[in-house]
Amino acid sequence: MRTIVVLGHDAPTSPEFSLDDLPGAGRLDVLCRCVTAGLLHSHGIREDTAVMLVLDETYTIRFDGGSVRRLNPDERSTGALVRTALEQREEAVGRMPVETSPGVTLRRGGLASVLEDCGEPVTLLHEAGTPAGDVPPPEEPVFVLSDHHDLQSEDEATLEAFDTRRVRLGPVALHADQAITVAHHWLDTDGFTEF
Amino acid sequence: MRTIVVLGHDAPTSPEFSLDDLPGAGRLDVLCRCVTAGLLHSHGIREDTAVMLVLDETYTIRFDGGSVRRLNPDERSTGALVRTALEQREEAVGRMPVETSPGVTLRRGGLASVLEDCGEPVTLLHEAGTPAGDVPPPEEPVFVLSDHHDLQSEDEATLEAFDTRRVRLGPVALHADQAITVAHHWLDTDGFTEF
Repeated sequence: MRTIVVLGHDAPTSPEFSLDDLPGAGRLDVLCRCVTAGLLHSHGIREDTAVMLVLDETYTIRFDGGSVRRLNPDERSTGALVRTALEQREEAVGRMPVETSPGVTLRRGGLASVLEDCGEPVTLLHEAGTPAGDVPPPEEPVFVLSDHHDLQSEDEATLEAFDTRRVRLGPVALHADQAITVAHHWLDTDGFTEF
Repeated sequence: MRTIVVLGHDAPTSPEFSLDDLPGAGRLDVLCRCVTAGLLHSHGIREDTAVMLVLDETYTIRFDGGSVRRLNPDERSTGALVRTALEQREEAVGRMPVETSPGVTLRRGGLASVLEDCGEPVTLLHEAGTPAGDVPPPEEPVFVLSDHHDLQSEDEATLEAFDTRRVRLGPVALHADQAITVAHHWLDTDGFTEF
């Protein structure tokens, strides 16, 4: 199982945003591209992968590659799935997730509660990490990435409470969705060795 | 210089399409993601790269990383640049390009005329190619990729007229924009060796 956790620091926590302006909705465009990069490949879906979008530490939406339906690669349709999830946010009580569309669930809570469920080690994809070419890919990866913002001090504190390793994917700092694509490639090729 | 040529087989050749439905506009969403993957990284632009979108073998729009302005990572704003370019298509005469917004030019012609200008060798990113891990990255890459469709027989014939090498990036067939991200990573890390 590959788990990808994306921190959306400005992300909306209510459905009152326009699909015509995803960048204006707390850069939801970034998060939508992360879902596509995490779950879709050419004419197929990564059934062994889940993408979790942490929305401003308030809600987390999980897209499960094994069960998601109606997931298309474009940003707008993924944004619509996020909006549909947020429309049902009142139904998420305590830590119980609610399925808001097939294979998409929403729950209350942010990074700490997500990592408690995911298990360790956690791999933080970060410019200041160990070069990916120098370490083997994790067996059951739990990747954490930030959106267009740097990690916040609260994120750092949460990550310190878990067994977190920092990995640098390359010499060029990438967008979050690009980093997900390269991280998948790292795993697909067993550390850039099997093509 | 890195040149990325994306073949948009169903792409629009006139500006009468809705930014609210880029997938319905001949999968223009695919092409927009390719521009972002080709030119943008975290908080920066790849000034040494140009992305050329071949629209149904009729027009080619070139986004030049060294001079493009107002390029944002979301699909919709890139789709708007494509629409603006197509609105000026009548001004492109013969093979002369017309600048339709800063750093964006449109010209008549498809793959053959693009490759005549780009030079050789051409690197076709394709599932059936030589594994990227087994060959050095090209010095002055001219990458060619297809959109969501396979190459057409006319594309194959054109590519045969040039010194074209096929390279396979990994064991999983990727979306065109994902392939561009991995191809950049291949170059950035000098064949997956420098992190």
